[in-house]
Amino acid sequence: MLDKVLRIAELYDFYGALLTDKQRRCLEMHYLGDDSLAEIAEEFQVSRQAVHDILRRGEQLLAEYEAKLGLVARHRLDLAAITQARASLEALPPESRNRPETVRALELLHQLTDR
Amino acid sequence: MLDKVLRIAELYDFYGALLTDKQRRCLEMHYLGDDSLAEIAEEFQVSRQAVHDILRRGEQLLAEYEAKLGLVARHRLDLAAITQARASLEALPPESRNRPETVRALELLHQLTDR
Repeated sequence: MLDKVLRIAELYDFYGALLTDKQRRCLEMHYLGDDSLAEIAEEFQVSRQAVHDILRRGEQLLAEYEAKLGLVARHRLDLAAITQARASLEALPPESRNRPETVRALELLHQLTDR
Repeated sequence: MLDKVLRIAELYDFYGALLTDKQRRCLEMHYLGDDSLAEIAEEFQVSRQAVHDILRRGEQLLAEYEAKLGLVARHRLDLAAITQARASLEALPPESRNRPETVRALELLHQLTDR
């Protein structure tokens, strides 16, 4: 379940703006806010089944956008390369690792991978 | 004009898969293949005005996707940080710059910025 939540959060971060307001709101409440279907149903004054359908449709759309565009996958590859570059620099002996040029580069790479 | 072509090529690279086949084909022929409206009109057996409208609509959609998602802008910011990190490492004195750890890190960052 955690994997699914993280996956949806990742897709939502990239493509959420292409969903309808209601799909966005439901996904946010359920996956980011951890609200139950019953709580969301009450908020929207609809049935639990309706909430279930909205969530399912939203998830499906996010997956379809990624299948077409692949921008999350592309971003992951970039992050993997940046993480490798960081590891390589971290492995430098102290006299090189602690130079201001290296420290600055590591800082920049750190910001990219730790968002 | 070159700026416009580069901008459309960039947006197309990210969001092209969300356009229709015809929009994609027209944009490719016109902006990547450098075909004239008349040549594309002949290929598709439509008027030049129709080609003009398809191109305009395709460009508009690409701009709308970027306005909503901002993924090209986000990617540019990442690239700017990576370019800075590279420059910082390039400025290391030779004994640090030429260590295999630094060379490997620079290689990885290079691949990310030079695609």
